[in-house]
Amino acid sequence: MADNELPVDQVATMDLNDDAVQRHQFSDRVLIKSILTRPDGGAGLAGQQVRVGGWVKTGREQGKGSFAFLEVNDGSCPANLQVIVDKDVADLGQLVPTGTCVYVEGMLKNPPEGTKQKIELRVQKVVDVGMVDPAKYPIPKTKLTLEFLRDRIPFRPRTNTIAAVARIRNALAYATHTFLQKQGFLYIHTPIITTSDCEGAGEMFQVTTLISDADKLEKELIKNPPPSEADIEAAKLVVKEKGEAVAKLKSDKAGKEAISASVTELTKAKENLARLEERSKLKPGIPQKDGKIDYTQDFFARQAFLTVSGQLQVETYACAVSNVYTFGPTFRAEHSHTSRHLAEFWMVEPEMAFSDLKDDMNCAEAYVKFMCDWLLDHCFDDMEFMAKNYDKSCINRLRMVASTPFERITYTEAVELLEVAVKEGKHFENKVEWGIDLASEHERYLTEVKFQKPVIVYNYPKGIKAFYMRLNDDLKTVAAMDVLVPKVGELIGGSQREERYDVIKSRIEDMGLPLEPYEWYLDLRRFGTVKHSGFGLGFERMILFATGIDNIRDVIPFPRYPGRADL
Amino acid sequence: MADNELPVDQVATMDLNDDAVQRHQFSDRVLIKSILTRPDGGAGLAGQQVRVGGWVKTGREQGKGSFAFLEVNDGSCPANLQVIVDKDVADLGQLVPTGTCVYVEGMLKNPPEGTKQKIELRVQKVVDVGMVDPAKYPIPKTKLTLEFLRDRIPFRPRTNTIAAVARIRNALAYATHTFLQKQGFLYIHTPIITTSDCEGAGEMFQVTTLISDADKLEKELIKNPPPSEADIEAAKLVVKEKGEAVAKLKSDKAGKEAISASVTELTKAKENLARLEERSKLKPGIPQKDGKIDYTQDFFARQAFLTVSGQLQVETYACAVSNVYTFGPTFRAEHSHTSRHLAEFWMVEPEMAFSDLKDDMNCAEAYVKFMCDWLLDHCFDDMEFMAKNYDKSCINRLRMVASTPFERITYTEAVELLEVAVKEGKHFENKVEWGIDLASEHERYLTEVKFQKPVIVYNYPKGIKAFYMRLNDDLKTVAAMDVLVPKVGELIGGSQREERYDVIKSRIEDMGLPLEPYEWYLDLRRFGTVKHSGFGLGFERMILFATGIDNIRDVIPFPRYPGRADL
Repeated sequence: MADNELPVDQVATMDLNDDAVQRHQFSDRVLIKSILTRPDGGAGLAGQQVRVGGWVKTGREQGKGSFAFLEVNDGSCPANLQVIVDKDVADLGQLVPTGTCVYVEGMLKNPPEGTKQKIELRVQKVVDVGMVDPAKYPIPKTKLTLEFLRDRIPFRPRTNTIAAVARIRNALAYATHTFLQKQGFLYIHTPIITTSDCEGAGEMFQVTTLISDADKLEKELIKNPPPSEADIEAAKLVVKEKGEAVAKLKSDKAGKEAISASVTELTKAKENLARLEERSKLKPGIPQKDGKIDYTQDFFARQAFLTVSGQLQVETYACAVSNVYTFGPTFRAEHSHTSRHLAEFWMVEPEMAFSDLKDDMNCAEAYVKFMCDWLLDHCFDDMEFMAKNYDKSCINRLRMVASTPFERITYTEAVELLEVAVKEGKHFENKVEWGIDLASEHERYLTEVKFQKPVIVYNYPKGIKAFYMRLNDDLKTVAAMDVLVPKVGELIGGSQREERYDVIKSRIEDMGLPLEPYEWYLDLRRFGTVKHSGFGLGFERMILFATGIDNIRDVIPFPRYPGRADL
Repeated sequence: MADNELPVDQVATMDLNDDAVQRHQFSDRVLIKSILTRPDGGAGLAGQQVRVGGWVKTGREQGKGSFAFLEVNDGSCPANLQVIVDKDVADLGQLVPTGTCVYVEGMLKNPPEGTKQKIELRVQKVVDVGMVDPAKYPIPKTKLTLEFLRDRIPFRPRTNTIAAVARIRNALAYATHTFLQKQGFLYIHTPIITTSDCEGAGEMFQVTTLISDADKLEKELIKNPPPSEADIEAAKLVVKEKGEAVAKLKSDKAGKEAISASVTELTKAKENLARLEERSKLKPGIPQKDGKIDYTQDFFARQAFLTVSGQLQVETYACAVSNVYTFGPTFRAEHSHTSRHLAEFWMVEPEMAFSDLKDDMNCAEAYVKFMCDWLLDHCFDDMEFMAKNYDKSCINRLRMVASTPFERITYTEAVELLEVAVKEGKHFENKVEWGIDLASEHERYLTEVKFQKPVIVYNYPKGIKAFYMRLNDDLKTVAAMDVLVPKVGELIGGSQREERYDVIKSRIEDMGLPLEPYEWYLDLRRFGTVKHSGFGLGFERMILFATGIDNIRDVIPFPRYPGRADL
């Protein structure tokens, strides 16, 4: 801040005392996390002069208005710092409403014996206040439902739950990068706008400038109407006259200058006519050709869509630099109103050359375990919040998954187990028989009831899986695998890819897909092909799994689903 | 791999010997990097049994076809491993074409004295080969231009240049996360699909399902034509008859059962009529209402676009959890064919609560320096490749930027310096006077000629900057800043944000923008407002700066620009 009055070396000392202390490098603010998450709860910092900023969670005036207690949170950790302000220092009425932003300076002190806090801040100076009119504040202090908060997207990160989800999401993202970087994977930015359709069938969003171009043209034509037939006839007449004038001058053997001037006039008249004829062809609306939309006029000169997966594209890098991954947004234009689907969601997709299905399963298992350990190490306070408020078992679930080898069974074994369950009286909505796509209820039975731990099901029937999955020697199954975990069911789907040119070509044809759009993908098998495998993890699913939250709309900052795309 | 014959403990030993050794955790492959980038160039690994996989850069048969030398690269580092295969081990003719994929097992040996390599691999077994027909290979061994490679997107990562760019890009991405995470920033996934327009004027791509829905409807109507007027008249007649039948039965005081049966028939006839009337309203084409496209029928029930920046959205998190950033794709539908613009590119946008313009500049400078240091520490071999092939000065540039404090001058000072330059005979294409937006030539003069180091220009005229930038006390300038660096000019643009409700409201109105779309943004100033600042770094610009490559299309894996969106 401009008026830096804080003795900087005192703050700097804090950095030296304890690894956990985190001072904001670019201002003189101290993160509340660096005070409260020390092993001593901050007690050892008593006597330190600090500046903190945050938003008031609860505030109350005490001692007949002689001082105020504020619970202040800055988002760096779930815990609030207790802040005490005397009435001589500031207008207490302005500070206490929930949601007020305070930026204050003061001395850390040990509170009286017997209080919960290990440290509190006695304010000497209020640097800044961002006030709140409690009558109008969008998120009142009363108990709020997650559904209510979905209608208040700009303010919901100020709630304990959405802030904790943000920290957990952040931790999982960084854990993802850290894990894969350590293993030598390169992060590849696959395209969002694509002209390929990975699944061969997905419901895709179209990306276009045709509509806005048509709007612009329409406005332009209103402002500046196209020429009428009469205008064009008139212009044609001028051309004719000017042409005749030139002819006459020539036949009269007029002087060079006169002829030249006349020819110039004719040229101008012809240009004018051409311009009018060109403009007369302009039609409002989306350009058509042969009764269809003319996509050669679109921005990319062809139809373009939002990606449903970066897998096919990232394979071009796997087939060149061997270990790669993509981590980015993907899209489905499905009119799905469930608690498990979003129109825009994030996926992590590693792809490894020189690897088969077993390697793929090993990688997926190690990755999930790494994320569980990471959360236990880096977000334990947020996990405690989730355990208290959303899912008692979430911490134990992380510990179990981190430490237990995943069960691995073939699809055929999975179906046999489900058939046994049915015989023993278990009721499923969906029929169980070899060849079905496992439904969520089947997956959850396997991981939650039968094995009570993560299960990898592999070698699925080829008929229910994508063309790019490697055909097994039985010619009936493909080298696909799904990782099922308690609470969410399928967390990861992956496969060894079909690296044999002839086989993948037949598979595309057998599925009735056109070859042409996949020629580049086939080329990867034509030239220097390699055994490779990979998988996709639905990032929001991982957050649901970790936090125990039920609705996927609450674990992404800006949820997009049919009818809603706020901000 | 399925047939794991490698003595695993030998490989594991390598991990213990040296930090630089990196074995792929999920298979028994050893990355070439872990052999060649050891301080001893791999010499100390002689005698080790390893499996490596990669693509042949060059191959040649020697000794009258008795053995082959292969230069093999697996993308983990720029260097190739020299691999020697005897004719007894494999068909050498299959192995030597450029682009062939080889997966081999053998023993590392020290080559004869006097050779460049410190280690080479003597192959005992060829595990897998992905062959290449050299006559058809899309990227022949001859010297290739970057432009030529842009027409061969799936294969260009197999070239030294594009692979090196991929490693540098990956390193910069991870450096970004590491730097910001260390400073306590939370990574927030801002939306790609947006219903806000950050700049108030951007050329945006539209995201829609209206066209595909119209296509579906058209096909459906052809297959199953809508009812004719006659169909509807006939159905109306049936309703009339059934109604009369009911009336007659009632007036005849018929039995309950007979009346009930007749009423059922009437109900069915009415339902049939309603269904026909509903279907008769179906019209092919994009749905219209009052002469305009009816966006209530679109997927999100309103017009939606691809984001041009995540800034406004990420501010909702900055105003709740204080330090945040977004790192994702952004889009511009500009018909720009320059070497500096893409339709899809990546931006890093940190946002800090409780921070002013000075803090913002400190953060931006520290971030750029961190990235430069990171590349020198993690990608020195790739940087040497770039220095050799693209830009002799690129390594020195990184060193200079990492170690030199950035010059900081106001916009007014910048204009004065440019005016002095003009007086001294410097020619600019664009006129210099207070109030202009600095052109690239001006920026590059300041950073490359005048100061010969990075320059931060701040306090720009309000007229040329966005509404959300904080108005300075002079009422003429705003607290904006641009970071200019040699080679690319503007690398970063940022500002302190206007946190005062009344001021930002006036600014929006003064710029002739509608208030309604920004109400949520104004709300952040109405309730618990906070001083905050942030910036955006064009990620591809940073790669251009680092590598010295000239065209932005060569530093993103899948470039999108007018007329092109391959894959």
